[in-house]
Amino acid sequence: MRILFANPNTSVSVTDRIAAVARAAASAGTEIVAVTGQTGVPYIATRAEAVIGGRVALELLAEHAPGCDVAVIAAFADPGIGGARELLSIPVIGMAEAAMLTACMLGRRFSIVTFATAMGPWYRECVDYNGLSGRLASIRCVSGGFRDINSVQEEKEAALIEACCLAAEQDEADVVILGGAPLAGLAGKVADRVPVPLVDGVAAAVRQAEVLGGLGVRKATAGTFRRPDPKVITGVPAALEGLFSRR
Amino acid sequence: MRILFANPNTSVSVTDRIAAVARAAASAGTEIVAVTGQTGVPYIATRAEAVIGGRVALELLAEHAPGCDVAVIAAFADPGIGGARELLSIPVIGMAEAAMLTACMLGRRFSIVTFATAMGPWYRECVDYNGLSGRLASIRCVSGGFRDINSVQEEKEAALIEACCLAAEQDEADVVILGGAPLAGLAGKVADRVPVPLVDGVAAAVRQAEVLGGLGVRKATAGTFRRPDPKVITGVPAALEGLFSRR
Amino acid sequence: MRILFANPNTSVSVTDRIAAVARAAASAGTEIVAVTGQTGVPYIATRAEAVIGGRVALELLAEHAPGCDVAVIAAFADPGIGGARELLSIPVIGMAEAAMLTACMLGRRFSIVTFATAMGPWYRECVDYNGLSGRLASIRCVSGGFRDINSVQEEKEAALIEACCLAAEQDEADVVILGGAPLAGLAGKVADRVPVPLVDGVAAAVRQAEVLGGLGVRKATAGTFRRPDPKVITGVPAALEGLFSRR
Amino acid sequence: MRILFANPNTSVSVTDRIAAVARAAASAGTEIVAVTGQTGVPYIATRAEAVIGGRVALELLAEHAPGCDVAVIAAFADPGIGGARELLSIPVIGMAEAAMLTACMLGRRFSIVTFATAMGPWYRECVDYNGLSGRLASIRCVSGGFRDINSVQEEKEAALIEACCLAAEQDEADVVILGGAPLAGLAGKVADRVPVPLVDGVAAAVRQAEVLGGLGVRKATAGTFRRPDPKVITGVPAALEGLFSRR
Amino acid sequence: MRILFANPNTSVSVTDRIAAVARAAASAGTEIVAVTGQTGVPYIATRAEAVIGGRVALELLAEHAPGCDVAVIAAFADPGIGGARELLSIPVIGMAEAAMLTACMLGRRFSIVTFATAMGPWYRECVDYNGLSGRLASIRCVSGGFRDINSVQEEKEAALIEACCLAAEQDEADVVILGGAPLAGLAGKVADRVPVPLVDGVAAAVRQAEVLGGLGVRKATAGTFRRPDPKVITGVPAALEGLFSRR
Amino acid sequence: MRILFANPNTSVSVTDRIAAVARAAASAGTEIVAVTGQTGVPYIATRAEAVIGGRVALELLAEHAPGCDVAVIAAFADPGIGGARELLSIPVIGMAEAAMLTACMLGRRFSIVTFATAMGPWYRECVDYNGLSGRLASIRCVSGGFRDINSVQEEKEAALIEACCLAAEQDEADVVILGGAPLAGLAGKVADRVPVPLVDGVAAAVRQAEVLGGLGVRKATAGTFRRPDPKVITGVPAALEGLFSRR
Repeated sequence: MRILFANPNTSVSVTDRIAAVARAAASAGTEIVAVTGQTGVPYIATRAEAVIGGRVALELLAEHAPGCDVAVIAAFADPGIGGARELLSIPVIGMAEAAMLTACMLGRRFSIVTFATAMGPWYRECVDYNGLSGRLASIRCVSGGFRDINSVQEEKEAALIEACCLAAEQDEADVVILGGAPLAGLAGKVADRVPVPLVDGVAAAVRQAEVLGGLGVRKATAGTFRRPDPKVITGVPAALEGLFSRR
Repeated sequence: MRILFANPNTSVSVTDRIAAVARAAASAGTEIVAVTGQTGVPYIATRAEAVIGGRVALELLAEHAPGCDVAVIAAFADPGIGGARELLSIPVIGMAEAAMLTACMLGRRFSIVTFATAMGPWYRECVDYNGLSGRLASIRCVSGGFRDINSVQEEKEAALIEACCLAAEQDEADVVILGGAPLAGLAGKVADRVPVPLVDGVAAAVRQAEVLGGLGVRKATAGTFRRPDPKVITGVPAALEGLFSRR
Repeated sequence: MRILFANPNTSVSVTDRIAAVARAAASAGTEIVAVTGQTGVPYIATRAEAVIGGRVALELLAEHAPGCDVAVIAAFADPGIGGARELLSIPVIGMAEAAMLTACMLGRRFSIVTFATAMGPWYRECVDYNGLSGRLASIRCVSGGFRDINSVQEEKEAALIEACCLAAEQDEADVVILGGAPLAGLAGKVADRVPVPLVDGVAAAVRQAEVLGGLGVRKATAGTFRRPDPKVITGVPAALEGLFSRR
Repeated sequence: MRILFANPNTSVSVTDRIAAVARAAASAGTEIVAVTGQTGVPYIATRAEAVIGGRVALELLAEHAPGCDVAVIAAFADPGIGGARELLSIPVIGMAEAAMLTACMLGRRFSIVTFATAMGPWYRECVDYNGLSGRLASIRCVSGGFRDINSVQEEKEAALIEACCLAAEQDEADVVILGGAPLAGLAGKVADRVPVPLVDGVAAAVRQAEVLGGLGVRKATAGTFRRPDPKVITGVPAALEGLFSRR
Repeated sequence: MRILFANPNTSVSVTDRIAAVARAAASAGTEIVAVTGQTGVPYIATRAEAVIGGRVALELLAEHAPGCDVAVIAAFADPGIGGARELLSIPVIGMAEAAMLTACMLGRRFSIVTFATAMGPWYRECVDYNGLSGRLASIRCVSGGFRDINSVQEEKEAALIEACCLAAEQDEADVVILGGAPLAGLAGKVADRVPVPLVDGVAAAVRQAEVLGGLGVRKATAGTFRRPDPKVITGVPAALEGLFSRR
Repeated sequence: MRILFANPNTSVSVTDRIAAVARAAASAGTEIVAVTGQTGVPYIATRAEAVIGGRVALELLAEHAPGCDVAVIAAFADPGIGGARELLSIPVIGMAEAAMLTACMLGRRFSIVTFATAMGPWYRECVDYNGLSGRLASIRCVSGGFRDINSVQEEKEAALIEACCLAAEQDEADVVILGGAPLAGLAGKVADRVPVPLVDGVAAAVRQAEVLGGLGVRKATAGTFRRPDPKVITGVPAALEGLFSRR
């Protein structure tokens, strides 16, 4: 099975981290294709950046999905997920979505722990969008800035672990999601220092992508997740233009 | 007061309709600036097209907001609204949002009536996003295709009126929103043939924009709707690049 | 446009404050008619007092609505709003309703800050009634009593500003409503000391009333917000009796 | 135990029916005091009439509660209930509230069946106010007018039974409430013609009043259901004035 | 009226306490039959133990319900309640359910106070199951272990009272439920030390059982709470086998 | 990886079907252990039977989990899932849960189609318990009885396909779950006759079990899904007794 990880950010180093964690978490026989946004921002952290990232995600999927079995939008609040799910012939999942649905099988309520304060309310919109607010214990953001998105998980490790423990102890979280692609791989490293299960977004995504790939579900031909009718579109790369125009 | 209507579609004729209805509905002294997407699709009708439209909306706002007092994203499900609200220094509202909040003052539950079946579930996501599902009576979509987006309101007038009446009679709607920019102006024309109040999205938007412009509320400097920190961004027009980089 | 502000309390000084703030916030050409309850309590602060105030509101509307284009129930939890909306031929809005719907266009979640502890749970019922609990960040009540309802906004200014700032910083409120007619006008004075937009209930109400007046929406003739069937009623003033009996 | 049934309508014949059904449903040793509104409307059927009825309910409770152990607001959507619960020293319950809470113990979802179409949306507000929307299967209103409020249950018996059966069969109601004081006593008569349990509002109210009377719970002295602070009030009967002023 | 209290735990001393409190709270003429689980655990405090307890509850009801008019599952989160309500010919209520529904008539929001930390999230599931989350102010669990389930209410009395007071003062609870059969009788003893009404689960249950017994509601013959179709079942005691096989 | 499928029913033929479908859907290297209840009912179809089945599920898990990596409760409404998740050291998932979470990645709203009318309301409780009501489009039950649980999927095939198509066309379901272990394998056979993706509960469960097994998440040592404290228990088989007593 070939799984496409589309990182709608321009940080190749984050893509490399995603790819490494995805490969480590994948089943034998799963191939990971990881691609990086050619335009956009280094790291999506606001709603405005997610608007840009949604478009970048569609571009990446249009170009790289052919030949893949399942695609993952590899940024935490899943920019563009609804549109991608309509447009692509293969299943598409979001990293946040995969993490949250996986967490639901490990307890009743999950917390999301991440590394930047500004992301809390925006992440909550993502939880709401998925209809999972009733399963959310809390979102905890480590305060203070960070030096480098590529090493933020090492830099903030102690504070992130503390936030995970507080989520379990004070917020009654049964499971904690480490949110944001730059934290990929951290869950595995620090699991023994947090008393509840940790979910890694990238690892969850690769495994959930395998679920959809393995089940072999068909593309809808009715309803609003069928391929949209052909549409004239301008100002987008040729591959994406082709998806919309269905030529 | 100058109000910007940013139509994130490429149909100049729809923009013209929006502008005409907005001018007719505006207070004396309100100036309407209506602009059309230079790229994208003729009419947004799916989640995928809304992803494209969200980016187009930001581009239009970045270029045309200077000199305006309030901006309106003039497409029904408000593509890009959250990001625009962060990024711009002036208030930004969505056409669907304006219509729904206005409807809330005219009764307890509203219905949305529109002209294409495929839009129902996507519109419901918009209602959910606004936290107004508890106020929704129904979404009714007139079935069957249509010949021309520019004359769909004339072509489907009888069916749209019937849907409005059914919303009132069968769904217990106290008020009905005519959804979608191509229906702008219809509410005024057919109000006497529907037994509950009708809300026109464009007219509601211009009036609600006047509310925000008139109140003179300040831009947030804290929380997640403050201007985001400056960010490197590539692949976007200069005006939008400037909004992100804050140069 | 003539807008009626019906203050269902007996405090003429509060009515005067409402009228002054309404006039300052209104568009050119809007005339404000502000009337005061002839019976009832000086200031509604409990559910029991709101039951009394609801009846007073209907009496005031029955007597003073003729000749006006829109009416506002000028007490924060909108006593009698549902009944007034049925009974009157012109649109009727509540001050809390207007403030909350306006706040929804300025961010994702709003807080309400007010000057008396006892009002929190009762205000939350009002938020629930409007179906907006999902948009509520918090209700913060300044603790301690106050000397005079007419000067409570000056007396409690520092504490109210602090509560607004805490709502933004700790409760993730994107916007703050200053609740209660006695706080009318405060938002404008202190806006630069709170880092998120402030909404003044009276200012929002006058502007939202202009929206409904400007749109020219029709009165329902079907559904439960049509004029109720004529009904014999006793024990109420003649004007109100006339509204029920439709003579 | 003495239980006060306050009928905030002016129909003595409805009060008589309520009293008869309450006495038949009460435990040995329970005394029923049933009183009728001196002012207001013959039968509350709209939000506007409920505003009037709420005030009438407070007047009746103020005058007749002394010497009683529990009070019931004997009109279906419980006008004035929140205020009455604050103001009175004895427990106060509403007829709709009593019926719904009782129904919750007889199945998972209840329907409400009543005799006039206009009441559906208003009754739904009552269900929402009680936080019980998740337990509601449907509200079914028998269509068409009726000749006389005093004999509506006999006149509409067949249609009401049919609506109850449809609620069970089509709406998956596990239990059906016959809503509205004029239907008091009907449940007992027709129980064998409906395949799920029926709840009579008056019978449920008398029994639930006995629960509160029997438990001997104390009046709150903190929170928003403690007796409100003394308040000057004008324009109300002496007994109600005394409750507010606490003299 | 004969009311069966089925304690699905093996602690006879807890049953004795339940029986004593139930008898004290019952109306004259009500007979209490209290039975104890022959198998299972001494006290249900986890979801796993509730699975065991649900089966024990059905066994006890099958054996002892004949001759009784109403049955109560006398453990706080009501193990087996849905199944019991289907299977039995007489009404069955749960102790938590009875307490929560009773609390709803005494204020707007209730808290649950109990004696063991671990029970909070599991109790919340019970509140959710009853659709009453919107009425919940908080669940407060007294921290620290306890020596003996039979005397935990005496041992923890001070801490329980403090938790009740905090629920009223900090969580805006209008009423507090003392949760868990081992706390039966405490509410009556400490009512004057908590400023809001207290609800005793056993006392509420006996009174609510009297409501259902007194109303004489019929068993459903349609819907999912009718008696299930006869079913072969193995591995259960004869009385329970008879209920399933309907022989 | 070894995955235990615990069928808490006594129908060996259903277990055989489950095992066959699970093996066909599993990844290479996954071993399926399928066990059947020794006591209980042939097929769980009511809440009462689920109470019995929950206990049977715990017994099966206690006996057969040793040596397995993940366990599945292989009956649709997941009897005993919460307790099993506490008690076992390995992850436990429910078949309904796995199906619903998988469906969430294939669209916005799912329907559940099953073969017996009585199961609708009980299934809805399962959806509610999982906090996924906002994602539910409908539950459709094929009417009429069936001859044999072992061949119900063949017998009712046409009616089940029709129900799936109606869910897509009339209920706006983006994806349909075929609910109930006896329908295992049907989704694969009829996928091309339904225009939206179908989810098979058993196939989803085996794949989701592989997710949890592959991620290697730890058992909670804090919160309410940690192993419960040792507890004396009687009347259960030795293996289950050992899980509770932790000897």
